[in-house]
Amino acid sequence: MTSEFALIEALRGIAGSPAARGLMDDAAVIEIGGAKLVLTLDTLVESVHFLPDDPPQDIAWKLVAVNASDVSAKGAEPLGCLYSHALGEDAWDHAFLDGLAEACAHFRMPLLGGDTVRMPEGAPRSFSLTALGRTDGAVPARSGAKAGDRVWVSGTIGDSRLGLAVLTGRAASPEAGEWLAARYRRPAPETRLGPALAPWVSAMMDISDGLLIDGQRMAGASSVAMTIAADLVPLSAAFRETAGESLEDRLMAMTAGDDYGLLFTAPPEHTAQIREAAAALACPVTAIGTVTAGEGISLVHQEQPVPLPEKLGYRH
Amino acid sequence: MTSEFALIEALRGIAGSPAARGLMDDAAVIEIGGAKLVLTLDTLVESVHFLPDDPPQDIAWKLVAVNASDVSAKGAEPLGCLYSHALGEDAWDHAFLDGLAEACAHFRMPLLGGDTVRMPEGAPRSFSLTALGRTDGAVPARSGAKAGDRVWVSGTIGDSRLGLAVLTGRAASPEAGEWLAARYRRPAPETRLGPALAPWVSAMMDISDGLLIDGQRMAGASSVAMTIAADLVPLSAAFRETAGESLEDRLMAMTAGDDYGLLFTAPPEHTAQIREAAAALACPVTAIGTVTAGEGISLVHQEQPVPLPEKLGYRH
Repeated sequence: MTSEFALIEALRGIAGSPAARGLMDDAAVIEIGGAKLVLTLDTLVESVHFLPDDPPQDIAWKLVAVNASDVSAKGAEPLGCLYSHALGEDAWDHAFLDGLAEACAHFRMPLLGGDTVRMPEGAPRSFSLTALGRTDGAVPARSGAKAGDRVWVSGTIGDSRLGLAVLTGRAASPEAGEWLAARYRRPAPETRLGPALAPWVSAMMDISDGLLIDGQRMAGASSVAMTIAADLVPLSAAFRETAGESLEDRLMAMTAGDDYGLLFTAPPEHTAQIREAAAALACPVTAIGTVTAGEGISLVHQEQPVPLPEKLGYRH
Repeated sequence: MTSEFALIEALRGIAGSPAARGLMDDAAVIEIGGAKLVLTLDTLVESVHFLPDDPPQDIAWKLVAVNASDVSAKGAEPLGCLYSHALGEDAWDHAFLDGLAEACAHFRMPLLGGDTVRMPEGAPRSFSLTALGRTDGAVPARSGAKAGDRVWVSGTIGDSRLGLAVLTGRAASPEAGEWLAARYRRPAPETRLGPALAPWVSAMMDISDGLLIDGQRMAGASSVAMTIAADLVPLSAAFRETAGESLEDRLMAMTAGDDYGLLFTAPPEHTAQIREAAAALACPVTAIGTVTAGEGISLVHQEQPVPLPEKLGYRH
């Protein structure tokens, strides 16, 4: 199979427009009539991004959620979406539409159009969704982190991965199991947070493949080094009760995909504004590290350096 | 398999935004900063929309061409595109990118972003592309045809289908075979024509599934009747030499997909402006029928009514 890396390199050669941001960002940005339009496209494929027996409502929810999350991370308000539906069985497809309608309403992302396609017999289902957002302000890139900035995350880390473990019988929690499973099945990022934070951040992206791998990508795009304190990474009560909060548990959380919180950097003098914007939306935000000159990501735990895990996250 | 019709009906229930145009059009239209943004999404699936051994460069070309055609039919200038690439074998994927680069340049449709996804073993390839266009003028809908209007098409009809017949050995032409095959493999609509015609038309769409079926859709969306004169439908010299120009040949042309010319209606008093706009781009346009009160599409040939063929076109 073609290496995704090699293909993206080749695509960069084609995508020369400044709006493409060198394909280094989560979204394209077009200026139109004084406004900035943010565009992102994500595809979910059966047996790759979801399991054949996942509830169709949840797959549709996730399709909208992951794109709404990208739009929010670029500081934009949702405008709408278009999607491509691979026709399958009647009941499954209509259940999918129920979840789609619910998610479009939840994320204020009206369905504007799309395509329906027949698939050959036995083909896996796949769904592509293009989301649009708009902002009149700055669009934070991955590449804006500066030495001296603080590193922040929103929400808690690792719940979705632990929810998947609960669903597949690899973890159990009588009290918190259902809550964790819902984090995996129906990620519900507060998408008003991105636009509220955008004026104060130097770089921002959503955490989709794991805090560490996404942090490494942000550090790379920004040509800086990033140090993250494992002990400061926010864990939910459900996570702490079910998995624990040792360094090992924390590393599991930090390399887990499907969080859809925000990872952002900001100069220390914006700390008060960041806390205020987040408090107004009742979204916890936590400073978990620092940006310095250099390159790559490194980890400390209780002020001691610790080696990076071999696998920093999940590659879809 | 779910009926596409039933699914689209259900989707209409979700897509309540005026920008969605009731999912009755080829594109969504959003107003932003005084400009109108036109958005369209098309998916091509292996063994449904293209053959497994079609040249990858041509598949990529077609993916861009069909979307550029939709943007043009809405009177918009291309802004760019995002696409989702299903990873396959190295040489195939890179050949695909060559065709993509060529088509993006040809149609002035810069690649802005997208997604690359792994596919399960043995899954058919599929590619979704979202195209964006912009106009400051009116966006012609399918639904604007009025009694008294003339019905027009651009270019010639049926060449692509005949090209497919040449490629699959069902038709042969020593002189014109290559030209016809290229019409199928690399449709190259003059996408500057849509914006040039937009101020003068009452309804416009591109012909993707066949002149008759698309005409029927336009008549339906506009709540009018449309009569088309088979003998006025423009055929290329290559088509006439290879297939002929009998009523039967004409019906074949009129029910063939993949033309990507424009079908439009306009009041008779705009005839001079339409001819002038088309002449400036060296694009032939032909008046082939009339719009009247009533419903549905009907056919005449040499001024005599003829029955509609059973199959009006191709349904993707």
